Amino acid sequence: MFRPQIKVLDCTIRDGGLINKWQFSDELVRETYVACAAAGVDYVELGYKASPELYPAPEYGCWRFCRDEDVERVLAGVERTAKLSCMVDIGRVREEDIAPCAESPFDMIRVASYVKDIDKAIALADLCMERGYETTMNIMAVSTNLEKDIDEALEQLAQTKIPAVYVVDSYGSMYCEDITFLVKKYQEALPGKTIGVHCHNNRQLAFANTIQAIIDGANLLDASVYGIGRGAGNCCLELLLSFLKNPKFNLRPVLKLIQDYFIPLREEIEWGYLIPYAITGMLNEHPRMAIAMRKTPDADKYLEFYDKLTTPEVVE
Amino acid sequence: MFRPQIKVLDCTIRDGGLINKWQFSDELVRETYVACAAAGVDYVELGYKASPELYPAPEYGCWRFCRDEDVERVLAGVERTAKLSCMVDIGRVREEDIAPCAESPFDMIRVASYVKDIDKAIALADLCMERGYETTMNIMAVSTNLEKDIDEALEQLAQTKIPAVYVVDSYGSMYCEDITFLVKKYQEALPGKTIGVHCHNNRQLAFANTIQAIIDGANLLDASVYGIGRGAGNCCLELLLSFLKNPKFNLRPVLKLIQDYFIPLREEIEWGYLIPYAITGMLNEHPRMAIAMRKTPDADKYLEFYDKLTTPEVVE
Repeated sequence: MFRPQIKVLDCTIRDGGLINKWQFSDELVRETYVACAAAGVDYVELGYKASPELYPAPEYGCWRFCRDEDVERVLAGVERTAKLSCMVDIGRVREEDIAPCAESPFDMIRVASYVKDIDKAIALADLCMERGYETTMNIMAVSTNLEKDIDEALEQLAQTKIPAVYVVDSYGSMYCEDITFLVKKYQEALPGKTIGVHCHNNRQLAFANTIQAIIDGANLLDASVYGIGRGAGNCCLELLLSFLKNPKFNLRPVLKLIQDYFIPLREEIEWGYLIPYAITGMLNEHPRMAIAMRKTPDADKYLEFYDKLTTPEVVE
Repeated sequence: MFRPQIKVLDCTIRDGGLINKWQFSDELVRETYVACAAAGVDYVELGYKASPELYPAPEYGCWRFCRDEDVERVLAGVERTAKLSCMVDIGRVREEDIAPCAESPFDMIRVASYVKDIDKAIALADLCMERGYETTMNIMAVSTNLEKDIDEALEQLAQTKIPAVYVVDSYGSMYCEDITFLVKKYQEALPGKTIGVHCHNNRQLAFANTIQAIIDGANLLDASVYGIGRGAGNCCLELLLSFLKNPKFNLRPVLKLIQDYFIPLREEIEWGYLIPYAITGMLNEHPRMAIAMRKTPDADKYLEFYDKLTTPEVVE
């Protein structure tokens, strides 16, 4: 039995690019799209749409910007059976970077926002919707918010036309019961809207938490190939597809993609279950300190890292 | 809040030894014990007690046999604040290998059995109990049994004095709902007995499933350092300790143990989330074919492996 409303979004290139500044070959991006489309994935997210002024071009690969022409180059001749998505951050994209949807290869723009920025985020989402895109709101880092502030943001979102709002476990700190709590809260506050889920894998709970969200009614599911993503990464697409019963999903193209592209890539860049990311997850902290220490000679000094993060400091 | 009945069993050496035929240095075994004891782990399982006639000694390390004198050598001078466990398989241990508990460093003997062998397993458990050991029954591979056969085994176990029975996800194929189903079944069939849980990590669900078992009432929890164990390995001890609220547990010694011993060990021997183990988990299969293919030049030919396991064969 399956729920036909369920849609899968692959965020491999977008979230994986946070590791290597989107320095992916065109070939890898194309093959990722092709494999995801063949696997029955509904949306493939290629990156962030950001203003080129903000990021020096040679340092950052083209999926930091998601220019429409880059899509046309990379996917030239490829059948577009999966929709294309990109993400935008408040303050990092100009109005003129967002062409009307009818002139763009992108179908969906997802707005990422902290609770505190929700007003700006709604304005940006309104712009995307006006230009004809499917739009979602991804509220980040809610594990660090007071409930009253989450509730207020949800009240505001309820008054918008944004059709889908995501529960995001930014720090990989949530248990299944937290997912249930939030999915139910979002559902009650946002009648008629689709609830999405985006989980990080710091504590090896991304897949379990995504399953729990499905059970609770979430219908828009993020995952990435072999779990690639900043820090510990995301829910593995291959695991998610093995769980979903919808006959349209097919695991085989993703297995081939992993063996041909992501095993070699994993030799070059790092993601997945590593103790420093587990520690930031346990402590409900942003992974930035773990990411930084993994680039030093102390990359495996876990105890020192844990002590640094847990030693009480004077807070005035 | 915590549940004082909860006990943690570390199976690092016993299950990890399935990878390398228990070729661990005395130092690693000693440091594992010391760190687990300091972390508040209740039981440390050092290996299998097996008849030396069955396994050639130079090929197999001493924890394939768990002779009492090996324990005394390795733990000489070490304070024994954690109890010692070993596992026995039916037909692989002789009566004379099991000394009276009062003369042995071991406190607990766990009997591993398939449902079909439960009568023999109960006889072996009775022997262990007669000799004074704490004893558990670990029923393996129940994900492949008909429910009526599980029920019959549980009925037989209900009539014994065996104080604890384990739900074991041998193939890493179970979801949280399967764990709930089995824990509740075991509880209902075995009033007054402790329920244990031992999960494998093929689909990155070992920690989530262990949490679910705790919620459902399991009080005897298996885990291993950095998840070491055959194939995909087990629930990570470091994750489990981060979840448990009992003040006696301490994560720090385990973090130090991982950085000093298990990161280097992982360079020598392989365990953890790898696609072939994910595939056997998805298919509810024993990991033996995945283990075998990982030792060949085709170790990363996932699609071929998947097709081999899923291509229908004529079954008469």
